[in-house]
Amino acid sequence: MEAEAVVKRVREDGTEDNGAGGVSSIVEDGKTVDCISTVIPGWFSEMSPMWPGEAHSLKVEHILFQGKSLYQNVMVFQSSTYGKVLVLDGVIQVTERDECAYQEMITHLPLCSIPSPKKVLVIGGGDGGVLREVSRYSSVEVIDICEIDAMVVDVSKKFFPKLAIGFEDPRVSLHIGDGVAFLKNAPEGTYDAVIVDSSDPIGPAQELFEKPFFESVARALRPGGVVCTQAESIWLHMHIIEDIVSVCRQIFKGSVNYAWTTVPTYPSGVIGFMLCSTKGPAVDFMHPVNQIDENDSFNKTKGPLKFYNPEIHSAAFCLPSFAKRIINSETG
Amino acid sequence: MEAEAVVKRVREDGTEDNGAGGVSSIVEDGKTVDCISTVIPGWFSEMSPMWPGEAHSLKVEHILFQGKSLYQNVMVFQSSTYGKVLVLDGVIQVTERDECAYQEMITHLPLCSIPSPKKVLVIGGGDGGVLREVSRYSSVEVIDICEIDAMVVDVSKKFFPKLAIGFEDPRVSLHIGDGVAFLKNAPEGTYDAVIVDSSDPIGPAQELFEKPFFESVARALRPGGVVCTQAESIWLHMHIIEDIVSVCRQIFKGSVNYAWTTVPTYPSGVIGFMLCSTKGPAVDFMHPVNQIDENDSFNKTKGPLKFYNPEIHSAAFCLPSFAKRIINSETG
Repeated sequence: MEAEAVVKRVREDGTEDNGAGGVSSIVEDGKTVDCISTVIPGWFSEMSPMWPGEAHSLKVEHILFQGKSLYQNVMVFQSSTYGKVLVLDGVIQVTERDECAYQEMITHLPLCSIPSPKKVLVIGGGDGGVLREVSRYSSVEVIDICEIDAMVVDVSKKFFPKLAIGFEDPRVSLHIGDGVAFLKNAPEGTYDAVIVDSSDPIGPAQELFEKPFFESVARALRPGGVVCTQAESIWLHMHIIEDIVSVCRQIFKGSVNYAWTTVPTYPSGVIGFMLCSTKGPAVDFMHPVNQIDENDSFNKTKGPLKFYNPEIHSAAFCLPSFAKRIINSETG
Repeated sequence: MEAEAVVKRVREDGTEDNGAGGVSSIVEDGKTVDCISTVIPGWFSEMSPMWPGEAHSLKVEHILFQGKSLYQNVMVFQSSTYGKVLVLDGVIQVTERDECAYQEMITHLPLCSIPSPKKVLVIGGGDGGVLREVSRYSSVEVIDICEIDAMVVDVSKKFFPKLAIGFEDPRVSLHIGDGVAFLKNAPEGTYDAVIVDSSDPIGPAQELFEKPFFESVARALRPGGVVCTQAESIWLHMHIIEDIVSVCRQIFKGSVNYAWTTVPTYPSGVIGFMLCSTKGPAVDFMHPVNQIDENDSFNKTKGPLKFYNPEIHSAAFCLPSFAKRIINSETG
């Protein structure tokens, strides 16, 4: 599906269309949706019932794309100071300025924790950023990606070439479809690592935070295989995190850990990850066994890592006391 | 000076005064100032030339205080989801919900890095939060604080009792005045630790980021004494950080380090600290030598630490690669 087919292109300059045309989001049926609004002329404001009472706003230079896919509202705008921005259902997914933190951490936390990963599955991640990072590993032979929304892939290829470069790796197989179904059908014990690069648990990604999905992940992993899933903010969503940790503790019989990193354009400025391993060779996530070889030919076109290094890998597992008390009581 | 004397109290409910009365801030003479505006009805938006093109907004329930001191605009409001919020010149300084991260880290990073601190000086910090944390140490005998703006102290005592409790410790001596002058007049080699809890380098805190001030700090510290200063965001202010690191490298002949932490309501969601020591007994900031005794009588009224622990202390010094490359090239 080409994105062109289903989009209506909107004005180039968010500030001139109707004299007060900022881009904002409103809550509709419990979901945030993009809309042209008069709330902050010339700005995009991210509001959601998942972070009530606060909003992060970016100044809009031009709206580059606005469309409605089968699953969600998709928008791309040129911001004044964060580069191009991808928004799904009113929530910022990627900005060119800070995407490095998220993409590098969600990928290298799991892949540097096991020796020589060969088969990797990405669920979600349709912008290609995680693929770009996975493809830095010369040991990797197979990179499967299952993204539900073709429009995300098309929009990324058109507007985010530095992310979509991930699709150019010949080891990548793109499957457009439901990640839950894809995993159910995957042969048992296939993958060394599964990376779940999802949006929030309101909307199309909801099932990716539920027990049956984690069971499928565990089944698809080899013994001692690893999963890394996007796991919300310690400042905003400790109740969600507590539930995820509890579910993971039931399912993953290797180890269950929580890590976090800074991403300025995500709500509360942080995002967390669940890192779990299946029964088998032990995985000590806090102490990476694998390093990115920056001189490797697989890395040359991608440039050096901007964010990840072995020290920040280990540091990511150190939690503030308020979070540690809750997470350790679940994992302990 | 009692805050009451110079303030005009404004309406209790930010949303009802003029039908569109949000609280926002605008830029005036290169400084941000608070104002009631119609930009986002019922919300406070933080905008500044220090973070162009983005704004963080909090929903306002009531404005509790608004005044103009000799130095700055001072505002307190009750937010919907972050508790009470203290704003100086349009910039959020403290929210009840996330103040623990800042106060605990700026205090315990330096004080847990040296054995048995006895004499501590706080520059700025008029809300009392740093004092509250310093007073957890039974080894401490003297806590001097020099805050330029009496209105900040008065407002904190009135609206932020959980911060202002720091003033109740009998070891605390409050000096209302200029921190730069205070340090110049301090006897040489007096303090084990100096904590500089300043606002941004636009406005009354500007001199606290300049070389003569750091020279005074070094002079006032004992050999092997430590300083911790608020040092902006790695995402937004690498040029400022680079300058501060360069200056500190010239002045502090022990060690010079940069650490950071998450604070959701600060721009980009992080804040950094410069941690330096003077020539003398070596200080290894990355490996704390001192622990907070949570059972100590000095801690009983304050409750357990919410954020700081020894692991997050060490982790705070692990920097993303983009910041590490610049800071390490400065620190040599």
